Amino acid sequence: MLSETNNRLLTEAGPGTQMGELLRRFWIPVALAEEIGGPDSPPQRVTVLGEPLLLFRDTSGRIGLVDRRCPHRGADLYYGRNEACGLRCVYHGWKFDVDGNCLDLPTTPADSRFREKIRLTAYPVQEAGGLIWGFLDSAAALPAIPRHEFTLLPDAHIHVSKKWQDCNWVQALEGAIDTAHLSFLHMPAPSVDAGAAAASSPVSQAALSDQDSDGRVRWVRDDPCPFFTVLPHAAGLLFGAARRADGDDTYWRTTQFLMPNHAYAPNAFPGETQHGQAWTPADDRSCWIYTYSWNSERPITSAERAKFRGGFSIHSEVDDRYVPLRRLDNDYLIDREDQRRNSFTGIRGVSEQDAAIQESQGPIVDRSREHLGETDLGIIAFRKLMLASALADGEAPPAASMPDAYTVQCGGAVAHRDISLADVMRDRFGHTTGHVGSRYKS
Amino acid sequence: MLSETNNRLLTEAGPGTQMGELLRRFWIPVALAEEIGGPDSPPQRVTVLGEPLLLFRDTSGRIGLVDRRCPHRGADLYYGRNEACGLRCVYHGWKFDVDGNCLDLPTTPADSRFREKIRLTAYPVQEAGGLIWGFLDSAAALPAIPRHEFTLLPDAHIHVSKKWQDCNWVQALEGAIDTAHLSFLHMPAPSVDAGAAAASSPVSQAALSDQDSDGRVRWVRDDPCPFFTVLPHAAGLLFGAARRADGDDTYWRTTQFLMPNHAYAPNAFPGETQHGQAWTPADDRSCWIYTYSWNSERPITSAERAKFRGGFSIHSEVDDRYVPLRRLDNDYLIDREDQRRNSFTGIRGVSEQDAAIQESQGPIVDRSREHLGETDLGIIAFRKLMLASALADGEAPPAASMPDAYTVQCGGAVAHRDISLADVMRDRFGHTTGHVGSRYKS
Amino acid sequence: MLSETNNRLLTEAGPGTQMGELLRRFWIPVALAEEIGGPDSPPQRVTVLGEPLLLFRDTSGRIGLVDRRCPHRGADLYYGRNEACGLRCVYHGWKFDVDGNCLDLPTTPADSRFREKIRLTAYPVQEAGGLIWGFLDSAAALPAIPRHEFTLLPDAHIHVSKKWQDCNWVQALEGAIDTAHLSFLHMPAPSVDAGAAAASSPVSQAALSDQDSDGRVRWVRDDPCPFFTVLPHAAGLLFGAARRADGDDTYWRTTQFLMPNHAYAPNAFPGETQHGQAWTPADDRSCWIYTYSWNSERPITSAERAKFRGGFSIHSEVDDRYVPLRRLDNDYLIDREDQRRNSFTGIRGVSEQDAAIQESQGPIVDRSREHLGETDLGIIAFRKLMLASALADGEAPPAASMPDAYTVQCGGAVAHRDISLADVMRDRFGHTTGHVGSRYKS
Repeated sequence: MLSETNNRLLTEAGPGTQMGELLRRFWIPVALAEEIGGPDSPPQRVTVLGEPLLLFRDTSGRIGLVDRRCPHRGADLYYGRNEACGLRCVYHGWKFDVDGNCLDLPTTPADSRFREKIRLTAYPVQEAGGLIWGFLDSAAALPAIPRHEFTLLPDAHIHVSKKWQDCNWVQALEGAIDTAHLSFLHMPAPSVDAGAAAASSPVSQAALSDQDSDGRVRWVRDDPCPFFTVLPHAAGLLFGAARRADGDDTYWRTTQFLMPNHAYAPNAFPGETQHGQAWTPADDRSCWIYTYSWNSERPITSAERAKFRGGFSIHSEVDDRYVPLRRLDNDYLIDREDQRRNSFTGIRGVSEQDAAIQESQGPIVDRSREHLGETDLGIIAFRKLMLASALADGEAPPAASMPDAYTVQCGGAVAHRDISLADVMRDRFGHTTGHVGSRYKS
Repeated sequence: MLSETNNRLLTEAGPGTQMGELLRRFWIPVALAEEIGGPDSPPQRVTVLGEPLLLFRDTSGRIGLVDRRCPHRGADLYYGRNEACGLRCVYHGWKFDVDGNCLDLPTTPADSRFREKIRLTAYPVQEAGGLIWGFLDSAAALPAIPRHEFTLLPDAHIHVSKKWQDCNWVQALEGAIDTAHLSFLHMPAPSVDAGAAAASSPVSQAALSDQDSDGRVRWVRDDPCPFFTVLPHAAGLLFGAARRADGDDTYWRTTQFLMPNHAYAPNAFPGETQHGQAWTPADDRSCWIYTYSWNSERPITSAERAKFRGGFSIHSEVDDRYVPLRRLDNDYLIDREDQRRNSFTGIRGVSEQDAAIQESQGPIVDRSREHLGETDLGIIAFRKLMLASALADGEAPPAASMPDAYTVQCGGAVAHRDISLADVMRDRFGHTTGHVGSRYKS
Repeated sequence: MLSETNNRLLTEAGPGTQMGELLRRFWIPVALAEEIGGPDSPPQRVTVLGEPLLLFRDTSGRIGLVDRRCPHRGADLYYGRNEACGLRCVYHGWKFDVDGNCLDLPTTPADSRFREKIRLTAYPVQEAGGLIWGFLDSAAALPAIPRHEFTLLPDAHIHVSKKWQDCNWVQALEGAIDTAHLSFLHMPAPSVDAGAAAASSPVSQAALSDQDSDGRVRWVRDDPCPFFTVLPHAAGLLFGAARRADGDDTYWRTTQFLMPNHAYAPNAFPGETQHGQAWTPADDRSCWIYTYSWNSERPITSAERAKFRGGFSIHSEVDDRYVPLRRLDNDYLIDREDQRRNSFTGIRGVSEQDAAIQESQGPIVDRSREHLGETDLGIIAFRKLMLASALADGEAPPAASMPDAYTVQCGGAVAHRDISLADVMRDRFGHTTGHVGSRYKS
């Protein structure tokens, strides 16, 4: 549990908050690349960390991430004209480029120097891995963008999506690093035979892997109390959750938390497609969740993409505004009969099950009333790291300037029960915390 | 009028408030029995006194009324599994029985005693008179359930319903003990002849009786300023409103207020079906109104039940979520032409007329701006009793532990104008404040 | 820019605020005359300056503007009966006349004098120029109604409408006295040839005149930085915006701001129909905008009326609740392709373009973040006048008791560049600030 003070410190990320300042020292996803049109297409509204912003691509193809308010009298530049290398307010024709410079101020006499005083707040922005990333601190030195593996691969090897969620970003992220819940939330109903479950339960399969996952469903169901190991590294934390497998074996599921708002899923066996997510606060009671899947060995097939779009693995089925079809206001279309007979929740989709439970915790979960146990060690370590980083205000977080530290992997493994997490990782990835940066040239 | 301080004291009933504490010392209706399904059926959400709760029936048929939040990390147990004598959270499988004991805590190692520390808030619950009653004070000694007459009769003799109302519970209850409003709100339009009114106005009939009510409509219309008498008794207050009838007669309408949130309607003549209501706050700006009709002499007929379900007497016509069809957001489908020609309000239904006027007072009426007159004596007495009881904090309210004091009746009577209320009651019910407990064995 | 304190002083107009008190010293439009039915028709809800009120016409044709709350126990008199020269509450039959006198208090004994103590808040009201005007200060001496020219003409010469707007009234009014924005907001797209624009752009024509406006479109587009002159007068401020026209000529557009909440449009050339507006706060985040058009020389034709109703000039296209069809929650049906090719905004309608930009400033624009320039002189003068007037609390504003000062005109003119605004006005209207009262007998 946390004190109310620390819960607020952890969860409030608007302008002027300490957690907000921490997040602003990192490049964070602010949109899918697919959302932004071609040169001079209409600007798109995005709200990030409580700030109403606009995203637009100018005539030369550059992308701007700017304040939505015209500095003249506060008109919304969303209604503006994106033309001739700038965004022009339709109220009085003031015009700004992607860097926030005022290009034209026609309501001023020709000899005026007023224009030089006028700036529109603009944030640096980059495209990588199918996402648009923004850096929302105007004052800080601009670091290089983190080298997540999925951003280093050809487009054919990655698939990205996003979804809206009606709760604070932290409890949603905590759901991803708490891999103990797999033994329940995403499982078949208890009445379903575990052997049959692998075949009968596409949801459980989706939560575990893209392929057959017979043994894994059984191991996860049979051991609901995995043993957690946490290994800190330069970009975040590696979590290992160990469950009893067959004989003397342990089934490891390893997860990466990457500062400040990413987590990688623990499912992938060698060769399988990997999944990760980033949680970007819209405001303190809602967030956008960016989900990226990548396969370093082969392209994502169109069959896989179709499954992801229909809600598979941790991709959600969403409408054209990226709002999930199964959501809080329709109780996720819960089917109580299905819950009784087939699935643990009666809710279709791994991503939707996660959303249901995370939103059900309330807009901002009250962590002063929690009762944490052994399987919550990962969450506790995550909170400690984030709170300490937020309280080091002024100090630039080291991870922000270590882009290479982000080239990591994680996933599932089966090993003899005497082998440590570090050794399991070294065997699987060649590095104790999953660093695979040497495969890519900087 | 009340001071703003006393208005808040009277109307705020959430956790930690003085009025909330008072209400929690009584058994109060929290649902209709029909709302809760059979063993292991899905849990139902109920919000009572500002607390989000769940109601569920376990495998053995026992009913639980429990906190909606899992004590682990605050997930909503509504999405939980009701199975094998307990409600299991789908996040990590924690399981609780109807008494709040933790039956299973699978994310903990086998040798852990952590489970013994974990409790889910659970409140005692009973079924009586077609209602589910809860007792929302975990610390107080549990009293016996109040012996309202309708809870002592066979099911065939009673009819219950509920409706949602968008205002504070107190002003709604005050509408029921203020019987002066019958001369207006529920009457035919002034242009309608009083003699013809009984025949032509089903609404006025519904407000007065199930049967012919010719004289009563006339007496009520002709004397809009009834004289009020208040007789306190162990369970609450008896109100008598005396109007001029024919000759030297007085038409008495008597009402019971029963601590802390019940009132009985004043209409019934001997043999007629009686009606009562309980107002249970959902939060301070909305309440559930439970309406119960009973006839101690004969079963309720199916024709009567059909009328009640269609909105008759003080039963409302509601949708499948118990929300009235004629409600604030559609202006109660007021028909101004009907208001001009036929009914005083142009709104169909006694219950809907009451709701219209009570909700029109605002979410919480500002009693510091009132101007109370002679016919508001009942309301004044009610407020005095409730405020004094709320301020006696710590002291258990005597009525809460006197279940027999609730077996009372009231209704209409015609008597010579020199006869007092106490004598009218003794003549009609054998007791000065309507106590009929001797008819039922404890 | 304004300080936050002055921004609040300028924009907050609820009961007890200084700006609210100022507005209450003037007659202000509270409804269209068409909204109020015949004698004894149902009362209409109106919310003015944050006060929930009712408007009704009694049996004798008198109009009442009264508090919506019954003084007895706060029931909403909207559900009341408008009958026999008064409005009767349906709860207990209390009845009030248009002056707030209690005519009947039937729940009181015949000999009671309680009724004499009871009053319903009622405000003076008058009908003029197709509008209902109210005076919302019960204590102040009642001035004569301001003699706006459109209120002095036969009904056939005027056309009135109203629309809802979701922002503070001040920023909406500021949009009307800021005539610099015409060079942008209401123009054809830059790619459209200015000569062709007059023919091709009905929107630009509508913003400029009812008739051909070839030269005017060109002059307005070619000079986006008009020179502003402000001439104070007894009822408000005259603004002149001077743009370069052909040769040595200046194209003047003159606007009247009339205390406390009117502005006249600057378009009309001699003989053309004139337009004006009044902004009446519903609450601080929304307002009703009354638009009146008048032609002192001839009746408004039915073709003109049809155009106005369909959204022409500064009349908006509205639904039967006076809510614009193109509005904030549907992004004004902005057509980005039309914005690219034809019009500056892609939004249809001058009135809708104004609403879009004014609402886009937010519910209450933050004037502490503005950057005002040369073309904002009119706005600056307006704010100074209003703030000074609001701070002179207690002092009756002189304009309020000078009804004749309101008989003014304004409009467009072309004159040699050496002629001053005062002289231009004298040439056009016979008076330096447009006073034309001598044409009308008092």
